[in-house]
Amino acid sequence: MRISELSRTTGVPVATVKYYLREGLLPPGLQTSATQATYGEHHVERLRLIRALVEVGGLSIAAVRDVLGCLDDEGHTLHRALGAAHGALPPHADQGVDSTPARELVDALGWRVHDSAPALRQLARAMSALEAVGMPLDRLETYAQAAHAVAEADVATVPGASRAEAVRNAVVGTVLYEPVLLALRRLAQEDVSARWFGAG
Amino acid sequence: MRISELSRTTGVPVATVKYYLREGLLPPGLQTSATQATYGEHHVERLRLIRALVEVGGLSIAAVRDVLGCLDDEGHTLHRALGAAHGALPPHADQGVDSTPARELVDALGWRVHDSAPALRQLARAMSALEAVGMPLDRLETYAQAAHAVAEADVATVPGASRAEAVRNAVVGTVLYEPVLLALRRLAQEDVSARWFGAG
Repeated sequence: MRISELSRTTGVPVATVKYYLREGLLPPGLQTSATQATYGEHHVERLRLIRALVEVGGLSIAAVRDVLGCLDDEGHTLHRALGAAHGALPPHADQGVDSTPARELVDALGWRVHDSAPALRQLARAMSALEAVGMPLDRLETYAQAAHAVAEADVATVPGASRAEAVRNAVVGTVLYEPVLLALRRLAQEDVSARWFGAG
Repeated sequence: MRISELSRTTGVPVATVKYYLREGLLPPGLQTSATQATYGEHHVERLRLIRALVEVGGLSIAAVRDVLGCLDDEGHTLHRALGAAHGALPPHADQGVDSTPARELVDALGWRVHDSAPALRQLARAMSALEAVGMPLDRLETYAQAAHAVAEADVATVPGASRAEAVRNAVVGTVLYEPVLLALRRLAQEDVSARWFGAG
């Protein structure tokens, strides 16, 4: 298909498609003349993925490029692809954050987590913010159990899926299921609050 | 204390403190002369809360004002304060999003959620993004159970806490525990992946 049809099919403006081509997020089409190229189903899928990562995942173009790189690098195991994706994703907590309280929590849980995991600093920063405003940290164990349950669903490979599908499922799911989890938490809060305190 | 000491105690620059005073996020101090005012412990706590909401919660000044308004309005029940806070918080999903798939999921779960809940549109938007990129929606039930478990911890009132403390605990916790949940999920993903696929 021509670039105009690629744009119509995906709802992404032609100028934006050209921008993604220039930025290398989208592989070039097959050149059919000096000024025209043709695009295939792979381009449609990749465009939809870029839009979802940008619009729903809230990623920058640089972060999208890094995440797509994790999917495209066939040399990565699933474990390494997931680690590379975590490194590419915001929020980027300062190197200066002391991750000790998070490390201690993770060790107490018996989780196998490398010291270089960016999420350790993200967690330590959030814990320190809670302490600074005098919020109790008593929910951490409940949170950790819930997080582990969803992580098992995230990393579970569908039987018969290829390596590429398994990596895509884990890496893309890490980004796109975050807003699902946060929205469900707020809806559940409303349910709990309605039951305990009355919907009024 | 003077504004300079308030600044030193909280680590917030004097210019920023003055900005929050002008924006009405921080109540005025007690005027001691035409050019000086004195501030108390309440100002220290409020400043720390504002910084945590901005820096860790990622809220805009407008959203912080709305969230603080929910805490300060003594007329709200906990249920209404939580609903008002949800309305004030990002992400603000388009009114145009069809929330039907999210409504159906919530109904299937038996949750008591009002049609006007912004999180319904947030959830529907995220579900639609997952479908657009061909990601399976088979994790939703696991996610819903985990979300409900953390929501119960979020809304639980500490025995003996005042209404103001209970509201603060629920509203501030809604914002500040989000990064905790997301960081724990990534750490748990690393643990699950290390166990199942080897840390390499």
